[in-house]
Amino acid sequence: MRIGLISTPWTPLPPPAYGGIEGVVDRLARGFVAAGHEVLLAAPGDSACPAPIIPDSPPADVDGMGLSEVELGHVVRAYNAMPDMDLVHDHTLCGPLYRRRPAGLPVVTTNHGPFRAQLRDIYQAMAEDVALVAISHHQASTATNVRIARVIHHGIDVDSVPVGDGTGGYACFLGRMNPSKGVREAAMVAREAGIPLRIAAKMQDKGEREYFECAVSPLLSSDIEYLGELNTGEKYELLGGACALLNPMQWPEPFGLVMIEALAAGTPVVATPAGSATEIIDDGVTGYLREDVPALAAALAEAGTLDRAACREVAVSRFSTERMVSDHLDLYAELIGRR
Amino acid sequence: MRIGLISTPWTPLPPPAYGGIEGVVDRLARGFVAAGHEVLLAAPGDSACPAPIIPDSPPADVDGMGLSEVELGHVVRAYNAMPDMDLVHDHTLCGPLYRRRPAGLPVVTTNHGPFRAQLRDIYQAMAEDVALVAISHHQASTATNVRIARVIHHGIDVDSVPVGDGTGGYACFLGRMNPSKGVREAAMVAREAGIPLRIAAKMQDKGEREYFECAVSPLLSSDIEYLGELNTGEKYELLGGACALLNPMQWPEPFGLVMIEALAAGTPVVATPAGSATEIIDDGVTGYLREDVPALAAALAEAGTLDRAACREVAVSRFSTERMVSDHLDLYAELIGRR
Repeated sequence: MRIGLISTPWTPLPPPAYGGIEGVVDRLARGFVAAGHEVLLAAPGDSACPAPIIPDSPPADVDGMGLSEVELGHVVRAYNAMPDMDLVHDHTLCGPLYRRRPAGLPVVTTNHGPFRAQLRDIYQAMAEDVALVAISHHQASTATNVRIARVIHHGIDVDSVPVGDGTGGYACFLGRMNPSKGVREAAMVAREAGIPLRIAAKMQDKGEREYFECAVSPLLSSDIEYLGELNTGEKYELLGGACALLNPMQWPEPFGLVMIEALAAGTPVVATPAGSATEIIDDGVTGYLREDVPALAAALAEAGTLDRAACREVAVSRFSTERMVSDHLDLYAELIGRR
Repeated sequence: MRIGLISTPWTPLPPPAYGGIEGVVDRLARGFVAAGHEVLLAAPGDSACPAPIIPDSPPADVDGMGLSEVELGHVVRAYNAMPDMDLVHDHTLCGPLYRRRPAGLPVVTTNHGPFRAQLRDIYQAMAEDVALVAISHHQASTATNVRIARVIHHGIDVDSVPVGDGTGGYACFLGRMNPSKGVREAAMVAREAGIPLRIAAKMQDKGEREYFECAVSPLLSSDIEYLGELNTGEKYELLGGACALLNPMQWPEPFGLVMIEALAAGTPVVATPAGSATEIIDDGVTGYLREDVPALAAALAEAGTLDRAACREVAVSRFSTERMVSDHLDLYAELIGRR
């Protein structure tokens, strides 16, 4: 197949730090090429991804993040360069509603975030002639009056995650310093369970710092530590040594990538049953899903008894890049065949 | 005619302070209604404009200014509400390239800013099936490979501007505290001409304050004053008392609204011949167009001898809301007839 992939104009592929969408697009591009398909990427010109990028693409425009002017120009140039594709998978917001794309070209899009009320009209209009991919069944269930073509869970390069033995004598938290991520709840759970906690979290903007000062910092101790932000190697080392990833999300996250990273490291996950968690974690096998602090604390105390090989096996079989790529190629073939 | 007018989602109609686009759309809406046409406005729900607004429109989203997510949702809801219009004039960026607008509906758009390189692909794609209005011949001349349907100069409610007698013994500057507006050059011109200058300028963001401190403040004196920002009544009073508006623009402004406000007050304009100035000012009649500080200073000394009634007359005949409305209705009728 000749597959056009439209990423965002804000972040290179792969993303240097945070960039959930761009990480997925980067892995899809590499995966399609590895599977023998022809790929053309609309992405910032300063991307390191080895798949071909539209010539003369401008570099990532982080200052223009979210702006119509930047996104729409990127979209126009993308479709201008893709008249000969068999299918385009468009990860922008403006693109699936762009008027002048090549006639008859099958277009797929993915909603990488929640189906917020503000987006409802947009996705309803898109779904008229675009195949919409949801990233979890929970997310799909919140798409009011919007037809979802396929649910495809994210995948990661499991081989790049070293398996840890979980003998570090601590649990860990990984994410952003944000109330929705439940950093405070994680600290409370660890304290109640009497298990040390190591917190690695992005903390850059004002809201994140305020939340840390007010809600998390008072719970820190010699056993409950904030490590700052980690690079990829440090992150995997932290995960591998942990008896469990503690992920007491306080919002229905559409897909929790950190949970599949933990599984890849062989580390069970103790989480609230919010958003996609029930689709990722098998309660009693690869972790525990519990509602409140006492129940999460009790579960955390048990997590060390779970079979770490089973966690890794689930990552390999259900959350690998290969599986994500294969699911996309199945959908694409079906859409091209239907044309 | 049944005319759909799509304004931005960022600012109510009329705009409370700055908002060039929204001021034009507000005057068009009122003018079309006064001319007996049916109007439906896509605009923030907290607008005071008396023309009908799409029911349940959300209030102005100033924090979301420029964001695709906000603009695209506004556009989808706008076209959903306009299946029965004879024509839509869309002042957004995403709207003219929106995929799912009613088939066969004639759409007009206006570029309210410069044709910057970043926008070229967008306007080229738009012009395929949208009639593009330019706001000056100079602006139109910069639209590389983009077909312009019509040049329509802005107009204002001339009757709402009191005619002044210009006997205040000063020249004035009105605009933003920005190098492109030539505030420093205005001060230099006034000093060289030996004519007092009163500067009224928006100064809110960091760049504006820095420019003031570095480039303008050192030139202030008892004769060259910075007044701050003025409300509408104060602005017209300042213009009416001035022997001339000094407008030494340092960039090709697509349309200088402040120049037609000066003319409406009977006040000649001494300006650089940049952008639209040569289309607005008749050299030697309603002002002077000169390139550099010495020539501008010599012209400023002569400006008091120009006929103020001639200035007002040009505002009435060429830069009124009525003329702007009439030009739009002519274009609309032609496009509807051609359908």
